[in-house]
Formats: sequence, structure tokens, C-alpha cells
Amino acid sequence: MIVILKPNATKTQTDNLLSDLQGMGFTYHYSEGAQSTIIGIIGDTSVIDTDMLKANDIVADVKRVSEPYKLANRKFHPTDSVFEIAGRLVGEGHFSVIAGPCSIETEEQITEVAQAVKKSGAAFLRGGAFKPRTSPYAFQGLKGEGLDLLVKAKKATGLPIVTEIMNQHHLDMFSDVDVIQVGARNMQNFELLKELGHCDKPILLKRGLSNTIEEWLMSAEYIMAGGNERVIFCERGIRTYETFTRNTLDLSAIPALKAVSHLPVIVDPSHATGLPWMVEPLTKAAIAVGADGVMIEVHNNPKKALCDGAQSLTPEQFDSVMGQVKALAAFEHKKL
Amino acid sequence: MIVILKPNATKTQTDNLLSDLQGMGFTYHYSEGAQSTIIGIIGDTSVIDTDMLKANDIVADVKRVSEPYKLANRKFHPTDSVFEIAGRLVGEGHFSVIAGPCSIETEEQITEVAQAVKKSGAAFLRGGAFKPRTSPYAFQGLKGEGLDLLVKAKKATGLPIVTEIMNQHHLDMFSDVDVIQVGARNMQNFELLKELGHCDKPILLKRGLSNTIEEWLMSAEYIMAGGNERVIFCERGIRTYETFTRNTLDLSAIPALKAVSHLPVIVDPSHATGLPWMVEPLTKAAIAVGADGVMIEVHNNPKKALCDGAQSLTPEQFDSVMGQVKALAAFEHKKL
Amino acid sequence: MIVILKPNATKTQTDNLLSDLQGMGFTYHYSEGAQSTIIGIIGDTSVIDTDMLKANDIVADVKRVSEPYKLANRKFHPTDSVFEIAGRLVGEGHFSVIAGPCSIETEEQITEVAQAVKKSGAAFLRGGAFKPRTSPYAFQGLKGEGLDLLVKAKKATGLPIVTEIMNQHHLDMFSDVDVIQVGARNMQNFELLKELGHCDKPILLKRGLSNTIEEWLMSAEYIMAGGNERVIFCERGIRTYETFTRNTLDLSAIPALKAVSHLPVIVDPSHATGLPWMVEPLTKAAIAVGADGVMIEVHNNPKKALCDGAQSLTPEQFDSVMGQVKALAAFEHKKL
Amino acid sequence: MIVILKPNATKTQTDNLLSDLQGMGFTYHYSEGAQSTIIGIIGDTSVIDTDMLKANDIVADVKRVSEPYKLANRKFHPTDSVFEIAGRLVGEGHFSVIAGPCSIETEEQITEVAQAVKKSGAAFLRGGAFKPRTSPYAFQGLKGEGLDLLVKAKKATGLPIVTEIMNQHHLDMFSDVDVIQVGARNMQNFELLKELGHCDKPILLKRGLSNTIEEWLMSAEYIMAGGNERVIFCERGIRTYETFTRNTLDLSAIPALKAVSHLPVIVDPSHATGLPWMVEPLTKAAIAVGADGVMIEVHNNPKKALCDGAQSLTPEQFDSVMGQVKALAAFEHKKL
Repeated sequence: MIVILKPNATKTQTDNLLSDLQGMGFTYHYSEGAQSTIIGIIGDTSVIDTDMLKANDIVADVKRVSEPYKLANRKFHPTDSVFEIAGRLVGEGHFSVIAGPCSIETEEQITEVAQAVKKSGAAFLRGGAFKPRTSPYAFQGLKGEGLDLLVKAKKATGLPIVTEIMNQHHLDMFSDVDVIQVGARNMQNFELLKELGHCDKPILLKRGLSNTIEEWLMSAEYIMAGGNERVIFCERGIRTYETFTRNTLDLSAIPALKAVSHLPVIVDPSHATGLPWMVEPLTKAAIAVGADGVMIEVHNNPKKALCDGAQSLTPEQFDSVMGQVKALAAFEHKKL
Repeated sequence: MIVILKPNATKTQTDNLLSDLQGMGFTYHYSEGAQSTIIGIIGDTSVIDTDMLKANDIVADVKRVSEPYKLANRKFHPTDSVFEIAGRLVGEGHFSVIAGPCSIETEEQITEVAQAVKKSGAAFLRGGAFKPRTSPYAFQGLKGEGLDLLVKAKKATGLPIVTEIMNQHHLDMFSDVDVIQVGARNMQNFELLKELGHCDKPILLKRGLSNTIEEWLMSAEYIMAGGNERVIFCERGIRTYETFTRNTLDLSAIPALKAVSHLPVIVDPSHATGLPWMVEPLTKAAIAVGADGVMIEVHNNPKKALCDGAQSLTPEQFDSVMGQVKALAAFEHKKL
Repeated sequence: MIVILKPNATKTQTDNLLSDLQGMGFTYHYSEGAQSTIIGIIGDTSVIDTDMLKANDIVADVKRVSEPYKLANRKFHPTDSVFEIAGRLVGEGHFSVIAGPCSIETEEQITEVAQAVKKSGAAFLRGGAFKPRTSPYAFQGLKGEGLDLLVKAKKATGLPIVTEIMNQHHLDMFSDVDVIQVGARNMQNFELLKELGHCDKPILLKRGLSNTIEEWLMSAEYIMAGGNERVIFCERGIRTYETFTRNTLDLSAIPALKAVSHLPVIVDPSHATGLPWMVEPLTKAAIAVGADGVMIEVHNNPKKALCDGAQSLTPEQFDSVMGQVKALAAFEHKKL
Repeated sequence: MIVILKPNATKTQTDNLLSDLQGMGFTYHYSEGAQSTIIGIIGDTSVIDTDMLKANDIVADVKRVSEPYKLANRKFHPTDSVFEIAGRLVGEGHFSVIAGPCSIETEEQITEVAQAVKKSGAAFLRGGAFKPRTSPYAFQGLKGEGLDLLVKAKKATGLPIVTEIMNQHHLDMFSDVDVIQVGARNMQNFELLKELGHCDKPILLKRGLSNTIEEWLMSAEYIMAGGNERVIFCERGIRTYETFTRNTLDLSAIPALKAVSHLPVIVDPSHATGLPWMVEPLTKAAIAVGADGVMIEVHNNPKKALCDGAQSLTPEQFDSVMGQVKALAAFEHKKL
């Protein structure tokens, strides 16, 4: 970590800072230049909060030379992580399609969708039982009952299941779930992340509404630091001023994460855009840019307008998208 | 709620939508115009998720006519809410200054700061025991021990205390806390909000990093819907592209909230900017724009560079800011 | 255009608004509902500024039913526009690669790069003679002399040339240029756009730093309204809070523009990310998402660190990217 | 300027970079640390484009130690600039109110508004003759005829006038204008800025929709570098995701600019929010935060709904705001 001092730093102030650093167990390299003085901090600087260091009166700027994440860092884990989950491989070289409805409604609904998406080639079934909703008056999901229906659909089809957790104290209810999803609004719910670090299930970690790639990596690090190293990133769009799409899908995040981390990365085009007709081109773009999978909303009854059927693909539309996925994934030498 | 249909909506599709609406217990006003057809939904539309309705194939746009928040809404509660908290009044006509260190470190530190800020005129003491940190390797606060030290400082000075909660299952530990703070990263941690709706303490609800004013109101609504109507908003800057300040303080949010809600609103200039020298002008702006208080970081040992001393005001600097606050608050007929 | 009135609109205020509308030559459909009154304005509403109408005291909201752009609108021009430019076809079904250095430096440099990119399969040569620079002290380009060198490279290689204009009064100097580029900072320089509407050259219109897709379409409309209908959009990233990449490339904008407009759309991955190693995956994503081309920076001397060589691909790197482009474009049935 | 090299930089790469620097006339301080190597560039680094330097393969980061602006920089001009314009003083210690309609419509309109705002205490009259409009089909202003009417209102009232220029070739028409405004969309129209650098009138430079404070200072520098040192900044809100207000007014920008520059800074609450009822609280906040003035829209006929009357204050409302302005400015020892 490089600390650039302001030109007007006094010797006393500088000595105080250096002695604080020593007190924390760091050594340093000190270089006084013509324009400014620079301190190179040596040691495990991941414990230092750069914002706080920047706030020091005599500090002009702070620049990390090494990234603050370790377990998620490709430098210390050069080979791509590929996870085996219920017989499926997720990670580099594979393209995992997760599909299903936003909310679980009835046994018939979730099982029918499960059968349809399996037939079209999806590797995982998704469905929401606990729904994070902006309004306390909106439907919050079927909760435990919804989880039960999802597990029934898993048994009926053999598809492993992905579903969202909102409260660390619900973890017991997730024993039959194959992949636990952390939603965008909980990406920096550190208490939840810590608990998930102690469970033995893969975590699908969605990017927060306006979180940086580095913050996202640090949230993965929270989970991994607890012992659970199976984290899968899911890019789902960031909040910008643009209103054509619900969020702005940041596909640059895929090669960015692939460069600095060994963990798998998938893309959620359904939530990112809120526009079913954009799912196909953005899924293809996700394959081409190097993503390891997609998560797509599919609902079997889109005339049910007031629930989330309408923002989803129909099973027929999904089947058509899967035709494109299969061809492009084969072209890119990715296994479905 | 107004639903504007697309020009190409078929009769069958429209009938399906209307019958769904009836099935949910709504009545409607139907108007077929030259350019487009409009449905006015009548009933308690706060249960409707507009995003989902917008996603319907035949829907061009959805516009709420009534706001989705009720308990926080000034329409149903025209007079300003003023809360009595440990003998202090918080709300319109008053200007509450909350001051103290970012993190509680030692009994000596928190008590000294408490005595200093009390002497300068602060009404509440703040201090963090549970710290939400981007990195799992950074100091996470003294936790329960920190709460104990804060309570000691309260007893020593008589100042009521404000501190952050990160986990609903810590609530038992907050029995001596006067105001419970929800941090920006937890503004949409709905499980936490629900629990806080069942406690009998005022909640200081910080705005999320990139949350809209309406989403913020809806998070207050989550707490209020549980029975706890004492919510205080705290504007602490939103995330934008600008890097001069850490975040961009949105002072327009103060008159916005005052117009649509009856709840008190305060401002946190310390976190918003990350620059101690901006606290004075922005605190004055907060008074002038109509805020009901400020929350200011004060630390008694800013040479401790690696903890958060440096981004704070010294007690002397805080005393100088308070001189300005007293004069301007008096000018604006606000009681400290 | 739908105007939703506030519930408290008086009859006099409403009559004033209706009479203003009539005075402007509009007719209207008036519908008084249970909750709110709605006016449907009939006529060419593209002359109405919705922001101003929204600001009317009695107006709750305004919603365009028809888009404010006409000439760029696919509704009135259902078939894709494909432009023939110097023997090359640009638009749907084709994939045009524009390559070259950010700045033109010497005859040798621009000619060597031109020969290299031609050999690798680029269809157009780009090079900047007039450079929009944040600082008045930075190198502003070779200007007229740079244009001369670019034309020499065109003659030497036969490649048509693309270069940026910054001042409408330089138009005379662009007579040998094949495509005139409008940079992001000039996307809403309406005086420049108007002049370009009267010239007979295709315009490459870059998206502004934080402009919406609709504003971008309206800027194309400015050019087209003057008589010049050959506008090509170029997505080059928007400004967000994320700092990993220089800007955030918005690939959703490609299917968005393709859906609502008939004009060609290309992508600039070099400027969007500022990271040469991201050019290949984002170029592939651009093909897969449906773009009609890319613009890539190539420089023959990347050791020249203080000019813009370093952010560019070397000719060898570009050749490798073109290998990927050729294969994927063929797979997607796009002609290079 | 500090350049931090990547750990894997080879000696040859480093030598190339150092020799390039020398070739450009710079000397340097070279420091090889345990973790990374740092180059301190000595000389006038304002000509260096940091983005381009950052793009060099071996460069990890670049940090300016000195700001890239000189003439606008408080370091080289420690005292506040106060400009005398038509007998009024603009700058620190003064509070200048500029008021008038968005668009000039008729002689009667502009003269009546001028008389009204003068009576209430405005120091300058504003009115738009050339209007930057998103749509080519919207009213673009009365242009030259509008300027004539504005000059008539100036003669009738004695108020100096402020109006926007959109095209450097209109400069001749602005001979009777007292302050020339550059709109947000032209903040980085460098050709326009350069021309304004050669004129002898003060320039009111609005902040671009999503421009940083540093970019804004650099645009002032463009004007000042041409010889015209009378630049006044005008904060008018930045583009964010929030939709309650049209833009997000960034009042932190006022103390930021005051700290780093000697130039005056005013605030435009009318355009920032688009909400007339927010003008009063935000004008008061502007005074309290240290701004040197405000620009407020006033229209005498707000029932004219389709032009911009409605987003303006009426003369009566403006008079009421001026009552507040006079009291608070006196409290803050600012002269109107």
C-alpha cells in the first residue's frame, strides 16, 4: 500500500503516522521526493481501511498495490474454480442455465415450469420462496411452504434448485436447496454473509444495485473467510440514470471478474432489463463475453398479469432462447 | 393507479387483465381514447408491484396516482411528527445535534468525547459498536463490549445514545440504547426492518447508497407497518460518479421528504463528504434547507491515523461548528 | 400524449390548459375518472416539451404514447437502413470494423497502421486530427495537417476514413472524409448537429457521457431533420460510479436501438473500458448482441507511453481480435 | 505527478518510459520500493493526460500531486476574485440574484418580468434567446429578435443582462449582453470555450450534466487560458438515478470550488429540481453553504402552460423568496 503525503506534512505529523503504522505491526519503505513524500506500507494491508487513512490530514492519497481480497483472488489461486453441484459442473468451460419463475405459486406451477425448462436444457431450477419486496404490503412469497413446493419440483424432475435467503436464521429450512442465492439488496448484509460462510452450500452472490466490482469481491471474501469457498457471482445490472431498461447490465464486469478472480460468474438478463425480448440478445452476449451461465425467468402462465408472469419468458420462448444458447455455447467450446 | 395500454392490445388480452384485476378485488374505470386505452384501478393499489404490471405485454406504462406509502404519508397525517426521546424533542421546530466517534474504542475515549460534545451543545451521543465494514479483515467494532462502554458514557453525561444495529438477533443487547440506527447498507434489509417494527425504540433510518426517496419511504413504511411509528430519516449522501466527495449529499431530499411525509429528517455531513472541513458549510445548509438535525463525527484523538479519528472533527472544531449552529438555528427559529 | 391531472385541479385551471392546447392546434380526448382526470392530446406532439408540461401546477404526469423522434423511428421506416459508404455496406447483416489510432501523429504512423488494419480485415480507417481534450494545455491534435495525413493514408490503402469534427466551421476541411464522427461531448451540441444535417456525409454519432437512449435518438433526429438521413450510432460507455473500467459499456443499448430505430449501431470497446485486454471479449459480445460494427483503437508504437499508444491494441493484437471477429461474425451470418 | 509502476515492469519497459519522459522535457525522481517502483515526474505536468499514462502496460496508477488547472487555482491566486459587472460586484462577500424567464417571448413579457424582479431586489435579468432543446421540433427561442427584446428590457430597467450562447459565431450579436452563459450541454464544447476566452465579457459557466468538479475547473481554464479571466461557476444539478427532482443539486460543490478556486460560484435551484416549491429552501441552503448568488426562473404568466411559465415562480412568489434571501444574506454578512 502506497501512501502519498501532502507537501505541507510536518515532521511531527509524519512521525506520528509512521509510529502508528509500526504499532499496528507494519514495516514501511520511506521515500522523500522533490514534490512529495511517499510511504510504502509492507505487511498484510488488507486490514487497513483506505477511506480512513485518506482522511488523515497529511495524506494526499492512498493506493493499494495488492488487492484487499485474498481467497477470491486469482493471484493466490491461478486456476479457475469449477464447482460440482448435484452432478453439474459450474465454472470456466461450462455454461450453466438456471431457469424458473420469479415466485413459487403452486405445486402445479413450479413443477410444470421445472419440467419445461429441463426439457429445453436448463441445468438448474430457480424459484423464489422468500421475496424481497420494496413494499411491506406486497406479496412476500410463500416462504417455508414455497420451499417445500420447490423441493417437490426438484424431486419430480431431478433438477437441482436455486433459491434466495433473506434471513440467516432461516438457514435450517434450506437443507434441500442446492444453491443459496443472496439478493442484490443483501450483498452488503455482512451478518448474513458471515453465516453463509459457515454453511456447506454454494452461494450465488448477486451484485448490489450500485456496488463496485471490488466491493462485490469483498462480499465474496466475507463468505469465503468463514470457510465456504464456493461462491458464484451473478451480474444483474447496476442502477444508472437510464430508464429504457430497469437497470444497466454491466457485461464488462464479466471479463473484469475473470481477470482478478478464479470464481465462476453468471448473468441475469431478466432482472437487469425487465424486458423479456432483451433476454435472447443479452444471453448471447453473456456467452460471447465469457460468462459461465445465465439465470432466466420462465413462467408458464403469463396472462396472470399482476404477479410476475409477464416479465418472464414463456416456456416456448425459453425453448427458443435455448436453441440459440446451445449453438453459441458449442461454438465457444462451452459445455451446457 | 393508471394503466396505459399499448395500441396493439387485443380484446382478449385486455379482458384477461381486467379479469385478473377483478380477481384481486379491484374495480376499475375504463377509457378508450383515440390513441390509447387507459385503465384507472380503484382500490388499495399499494399491494400492486408496478414493475410487474409494467412488464405485461400489453401495458405501455403504469402511473401511481396515490403514493404506495400510507403511515409515512403526510396526506394521512398532516401534522409534523415530533418525537420525545429521553426528554429531547426531535422533529419540526427543533434542531437535534447527534455527535460522537465513528467507533467506540475505550471507556476513556467515548466518555471524553461525550463530555466534550455535551458541553458544546450536542443533544445525543453517537458511537459505533457494530461496524459494517466492506472487508471481513477490517476491525468490526467492539460489539457488546462497545455497547457497554457507550452506556457508561450515557450514564456519565446524561446524553441519550444512538448506535447502529446490524442483526435483528442482537436486539436484546440494545435495551439501554435510546435511538437505534439502521445503516445505509441495511436500508433494504427487510427482515431487519420488520423486527424493528416490533420494538419500542425510535429508529434512525439512513438512506441507502443508491436508493430513491420513494424506496426510502417504503423502508420506513416497513418499520411503521409493524407498529413502530417513530422513524427518523437520515440523508447521508448518494453514490454518483463524482469523486471529490465520498458521496454526493442530496439536500433536495430534505424538502422532498418534508413535503410528502410527516417524519423528521436529519443530515449526516461527515459520512456524505468524508471531508471534515465540509462539515460546517453543509451543516449550515442543512439548517437553512429545513432539516431537523445533523449527525457529526467527533473524535478526541485525530492523530490515531489508522482508525477513524482523522475523518472526524476534533472537539475544538466541533465546538466551533456548534457556535455557527446555535446562531443559525436561532435565526431560523429552531430550538436546539 | 397522455396528461394525467392532479386530483385538486380546478375547472378554471383545466379549462386554461385545454384552451392553450387548442391554441397550439391540438385536439384532445378528455376522460374524467374516479381518481383522476386524463387528457389525451391528439396531433403532432413532438413539438411539446414534456418537462415543461409536467411543471404545470395541475399536471401529475405526462406520458408520451408516440415517440418524439420520427425520422429515426422504426415505426415509420420498418426496414433496416443499410448505408453504402465508399463501397462498404454499413447496417444490419454486416459487421463493419473501424480501426486506427486515437491521434494522427505522422505520415509514417498513420500509413503503417492503415496498412496493418487493412491486412487484418478492417473496413475503415480511423484517426483523430481534432482532439477534444479536457485540458487546454494538452495536445489538441494536428488539426488540418492531421486531416491531410489521414487522406494520404486513405490514398495509400484505399480504406475509407472516419474522423471527428468539433466545430461546424471546419466542415470545408472534411471534403475527403468518408464518415464524420461527432464525439460524446458534442452529442448535444445542437448547432453542430444542425450543420451536419445539411452535409452529404454519413455521421457517426457517439453517445454522450450520461445521455439517455431517447436523447441520443433525438440528436440523430436533429441531423436527419436537416436532410442528412445517414446517421450511425456508436455506443461508447456511460458514466457511472464504477471505476474498474473508464466508463460502463451499455450493451443493452444495442437491442434497444435496434427495436425502436432502423439506423445502424456500432460499439467502441476501446474508449468504453480504457483497457486494451477487454477489447476482445467486448467485441465478441457486441457481435452476439446484434451490433453492426465496432471501432477499435490500434497503434503501431505502444512504447510511446505519453501519447495514446498504450491504451491501444498493437497491430498484432488487433490481428488476433480480428481472427475472433471473423469466426463469430460468420457464425452470426454477418458479412465483414 | 506520481506514477506507480506494476511489480512486473521490466527494466526495458521502465527505461522506455523514463526516456519518453525526458524526451518531453521532464525530469524525475525514481524510487524503487519493496512492493513497487514509483516515479515522481517533475515539471509542468498539466500537459500530461493521466488517462493515457494510466493505459501504459507497466503503469499501475497515476496520481496528480498538483492540480491540472492553474489560472482557476486558488494556490496561485489566493484572494477571492470579485468581478465588477455593470456596477454590481459578483463574488465572495456578495450575493447576486439573477432572475427572469427561461425563454424571452414578447417585449411586454420580458419588460414586465424585468420590472418585477428589479423591484424585488434582483441584481441581474436573465432570459433565453437561443434555447438548447432536446428535440429539433421544439421551439428554439426567438434568437436575434429575443436578444433585441432583452436589450430593451435592460434599457427600460437598468438591469444588466445574462443570456446563453450556443454558437461561437453568434458572438457579434452579444455586444450589449453583460454576462454570457454557457449551458450544461456545452460545458465541454471546447471550440466555444476557446472563442469565449478571447472576448471581454464575464462568462457564467454551468456544470455539465455529469461532469466532475475537476472537469468543470478545466473548462473554466479553457476560457481563462485565452485571456478572459472572468468566469463564474453555476451549479445546476447533476444527473443521477433519483427521479423526484429533475437533477440532483450538488451543494457540496460550492465549498469544494471555494476551497480550490478563487472564482465566484452561484446556484440554479430552478433547473436543478424542476419544482418551483423547492426554490426557496434550496436558495436558503445556497446562501448558508457559501454560494455567491442564485439564478431563479420567474415568469409573469404561469397559466401559459405549454411554454415554460409553469416551472417558474410568479413575480409574487419570487418576491416572497427575496424576503428570505435578504434576511439570510444579511445574517451571513453578504451584500445583495
